[in-house]
Amino acid sequence: MAEERKSLLERITSPRDLDALTDEQLNTLCAELREKIVSTVSQTGGHLASNLGVVELTVALHRFLDCPNDKIVWDVGHQCYAHKLLTGRFDRFGTLRQKDGISGFPNPSESPYDAFVAGHSSTAVSAACGIARAATLSGNGHYTVAVLGDGALTGGEAYEGLNNAGHSNDRLIVVLNDNRMSIGRNVGFVARHLSNLRSRSRYVRFKRGLTKVLMHIPLIGKPIYRFLLRAKLNIKYALYDSSTVFEDMGFYYFGPIDGHNLRDLTQALATAKDIGRPVLLHIETQKGKGYLPAEQDPSRFHGLGLFDIDTGDSPTSGTSFSSVFGEELTRLAATDDRLFAITAAMRDGTGLGGFEYAYPERFADVGIAEEHAVTFASGLAVGGMLPVFAVYSTFLQRCYDQLLNDTAIANNHVVLGIDRAGLVPADGTTHQGIFDTAFLRTIPHVTLFAPSSYDDLRLCLNRAIYQTEGIAAVRYPRGVERPLPSYFAAEDTPFTLYRSEGATKLLVTYGTLLSEALQATDGLSVDVLKLTRILPIPEDAARLASSYREVYFAEEGIRTGGVGEAFGWLLRKVGYAGRYELRAIDGFMPTCTVSEALAMTGLNTEGLRAFISEDAHE
Amino acid sequence: MAEERKSLLERITSPRDLDALTDEQLNTLCAELREKIVSTVSQTGGHLASNLGVVELTVALHRFLDCPNDKIVWDVGHQCYAHKLLTGRFDRFGTLRQKDGISGFPNPSESPYDAFVAGHSSTAVSAACGIARAATLSGNGHYTVAVLGDGALTGGEAYEGLNNAGHSNDRLIVVLNDNRMSIGRNVGFVARHLSNLRSRSRYVRFKRGLTKVLMHIPLIGKPIYRFLLRAKLNIKYALYDSSTVFEDMGFYYFGPIDGHNLRDLTQALATAKDIGRPVLLHIETQKGKGYLPAEQDPSRFHGLGLFDIDTGDSPTSGTSFSSVFGEELTRLAATDDRLFAITAAMRDGTGLGGFEYAYPERFADVGIAEEHAVTFASGLAVGGMLPVFAVYSTFLQRCYDQLLNDTAIANNHVVLGIDRAGLVPADGTTHQGIFDTAFLRTIPHVTLFAPSSYDDLRLCLNRAIYQTEGIAAVRYPRGVERPLPSYFAAEDTPFTLYRSEGATKLLVTYGTLLSEALQATDGLSVDVLKLTRILPIPEDAARLASSYREVYFAEEGIRTGGVGEAFGWLLRKVGYAGRYELRAIDGFMPTCTVSEALAMTGLNTEGLRAFISEDAHE
Repeated sequence: MAEERKSLLERITSPRDLDALTDEQLNTLCAELREKIVSTVSQTGGHLASNLGVVELTVALHRFLDCPNDKIVWDVGHQCYAHKLLTGRFDRFGTLRQKDGISGFPNPSESPYDAFVAGHSSTAVSAACGIARAATLSGNGHYTVAVLGDGALTGGEAYEGLNNAGHSNDRLIVVLNDNRMSIGRNVGFVARHLSNLRSRSRYVRFKRGLTKVLMHIPLIGKPIYRFLLRAKLNIKYALYDSSTVFEDMGFYYFGPIDGHNLRDLTQALATAKDIGRPVLLHIETQKGKGYLPAEQDPSRFHGLGLFDIDTGDSPTSGTSFSSVFGEELTRLAATDDRLFAITAAMRDGTGLGGFEYAYPERFADVGIAEEHAVTFASGLAVGGMLPVFAVYSTFLQRCYDQLLNDTAIANNHVVLGIDRAGLVPADGTTHQGIFDTAFLRTIPHVTLFAPSSYDDLRLCLNRAIYQTEGIAAVRYPRGVERPLPSYFAAEDTPFTLYRSEGATKLLVTYGTLLSEALQATDGLSVDVLKLTRILPIPEDAARLASSYREVYFAEEGIRTGGVGEAFGWLLRKVGYAGRYELRAIDGFMPTCTVSEALAMTGLNTEGLRAFISEDAHE
Repeated sequence: MAEERKSLLERITSPRDLDALTDEQLNTLCAELREKIVSTVSQTGGHLASNLGVVELTVALHRFLDCPNDKIVWDVGHQCYAHKLLTGRFDRFGTLRQKDGISGFPNPSESPYDAFVAGHSSTAVSAACGIARAATLSGNGHYTVAVLGDGALTGGEAYEGLNNAGHSNDRLIVVLNDNRMSIGRNVGFVARHLSNLRSRSRYVRFKRGLTKVLMHIPLIGKPIYRFLLRAKLNIKYALYDSSTVFEDMGFYYFGPIDGHNLRDLTQALATAKDIGRPVLLHIETQKGKGYLPAEQDPSRFHGLGLFDIDTGDSPTSGTSFSSVFGEELTRLAATDDRLFAITAAMRDGTGLGGFEYAYPERFADVGIAEEHAVTFASGLAVGGMLPVFAVYSTFLQRCYDQLLNDTAIANNHVVLGIDRAGLVPADGTTHQGIFDTAFLRTIPHVTLFAPSSYDDLRLCLNRAIYQTEGIAAVRYPRGVERPLPSYFAAEDTPFTLYRSEGATKLLVTYGTLLSEALQATDGLSVDVLKLTRILPIPEDAARLASSYREVYFAEEGIRTGGVGEAFGWLLRKVGYAGRYELRAIDGFMPTCTVSEALAMTGLNTEGLRAFISEDAHE
């Protein structure tokens, strides 16, 4: 029996293999998909709850669409595992989130079935709108489907996309996958509006009855059906003088639909295709569906490392840079009631759970709304508060203009806790924290600290909050400290020099890469300069460096416009005429572990040792 | 009579002077404000229609608020002229938009009455939310008012802000100034939803009658009034099971209110203050109100240069970089039906009026939604189209992440027409186009062209569209060509060298600064290298430069991370060991003309001549 069930999923080499399956077999397939996802993620880590929630939806979509001619755009993208299993990637699925393996996110270079790069939230409607418009203009008749969660609706771009997409004549279906939470909980309007909508299901049932009858009348059935369907929708608009926000945006709205009922889903998709213009399908699903530990605690099973498949237990992560940040901020808030902590839907990820518990009135989870978070923080600063926005480096990319225009120009004091800075394992290209150094450098008056240890993080955070004006940011990586020698001690200074005997070479670095730098120079006559304040770089550090014959800079960040380049310019300014070599990251980084990434970029201990031993002009 | 009317406005030195005025005097004051605004803008240029629309609102706000303790946050900010005239800046108002004069936008360093920097759209609710939250936490009882137009609701951040602000207990009033257009016309949902709301005015009238009676009962009146008011609002919610989107967001909604009726406005503000938690006042105004030419054509009077006060005529601008861009794109679209033009509420500003007229189905004005614009363009590219997004440099700052994550990773071919690049006169710090070079450089695989003339722009646009992959951008300034010598001719090459006899010095530059560079070196033995492709810089150009003894780089853009730094690194790479000096822009630029700004930064002809004559180490 187990053998037979297994073979059903294994037999799917493309979505068209679904056509031959009976309803019962499709349900079996869903169970097999769940089993495969749980067993794989327990080995590889990854996103679990969201993937279990969209199994039936994915099967229904691939049954009713003609991919890759039709396109599915997955918002955020971490719910694409079933999609990948049904589109020719079953065999390689065990390599999920591994180097050279299957990405945990849609990746067009991996498969033609992955229509669009995703990773950040709230972009799917905009992308699908573009793809659908192109299809309309080319007249190819293809459909485009955007699948987004209710959490995505807390991000402004989703609203911009819906607002533009609805009034088109494109063959666009937006599936709103409502699981009553984004990553944690939902914010404001979205939750309330969707809750109102959930009480209207009588429309959907009535429609389905009608459809069933009409669709069985050949030729004549379909036009009459479409006419009646549209007429009925118009009556609906007349009845509800204030229609749903989606209808105001121009969409035909259907919902709510049981997202775990394959028949209901396929029926709804068939109807949506018949409408022939933008439709919003509001489906309800349960995160973690079908795996009890995840159903009971979907937040914990949102994204995770390895875990025990039977109990759902995973090794608790314990202390990390995120937890140290959260604890220190909470400690400071006890004696300073101006401190205010902000997260954009990443309370637990950024270590702010304790802060919210202790000071709920000085805490805000704004949803997936990084732009709002920064401008809100700037407003708090104007009002005399000390706002601290904890955000992943990759998501800080979303508020460049808010940092520049809304904060830096007036020099409002906003503190950023930049989490997941530097190389980020497994989540791949879309989640690397390697750009913040370079884009923050283009904004005047930003101060940026890069601690190398937990103690260092505490010192930097205090300095950012209490001894800095304007935008003051502290960046630190995902996870735990890297090994540091016993002589290392965090110092409340902008830079620190580690001397060896008679050195004429200097290796400069910052952040946790200090670990590799100190190991690489261990036993060599090479000094190491740790920059703790990397924006602006202390001129004294450059002056000190200029006394060496050769200066090497190692940077776990993008090369173009980064700290290493800035250091080079500062060396020029202080009159240095010796050799200066920069090793940094060039271009996008693929999915792999941090140590694999350090090896690829020559930033691991061996790589750095070779770097400082190179002849001039690498 | 004219003398007497004039003296009323002149007598206002702070908003508290409004308290003594009768209703009739307040109406007279409004007329005086209009007169002053029209006469000043006819001399200085500036935003006219939007300022004329909010005269009564501004008077009502300052009558009912206690600024600067209470705060007004003006969205976009260009509608703050009456506010400035009422807050102690009447005398200096003739210096509007001049160097060292009154800024055309709110500027906290200019006056304590200007609560928050504005310039870009859709940020006011977020900022006001922060200021109001700070007031709540400090218990100071102050009110915060955000004033935003309906156009601002097409931008995602406004929605993020509303979604977060409504459910608070803050003393926050959001005034939605509905003039049925953003800068041009409105998009999708916003227009439709507001149109629905406009039909509900009976509520507002009823409330006002009630208020009038109750507010005259001392002491007891107010609590009963508040009780009845809230009860009535709850009944309203019960009646309208689908409430307005603003109510779903947690706001008490009042409207629509006649925004040109001072009594209605002050009554509505009084009620809003009484509610004691977030209120949204939906007011209707007319852009250009009170000045006939502007009433009849508000789009033309949105932002403009000098004009004849009696007829409203202004010298037509004729050919400009924007118009050349639009015409060339339209020309190409005639023979290539893959070309698709996108603007974010700047159709006329970016010269796309003709394109829309000729190819409406391949044109999209997405509203003030730059993030959507880029992701939408990337989707179009996936669908096989050739999308071209025309956007002001300063607004491109809003879609850094969409360029990086949604476009660059998959290397989708999206063309950007970056208008208003470089120094932008008069609009001040918030509108300078000096950051795009630096932040685009941090994004892998971006190609960026900087034409120096109209012909050059045409060539660059063709190259960007047809000979480039991934993100291909062309940047050009506001306005017209700068003078170029007769030997200049646009060339379809990535760089051009202008030689003189026996030169050992080289001045490198790009874009329209070539004009100053060629004038500065005229008659000197200094060669000039014009970079046409500035990202990536052609290595051959650096190799050529490395044959000079001294290389100078002049850049009309931010220094940190910019093209001049990149050129310096490339010189190193090709083994150059000579002198390299970089002159670029450091930090934010204030309001002034382009020639004043060039003089301030040493980038005008005289400045560059001094630059290339300097001794080593400037």
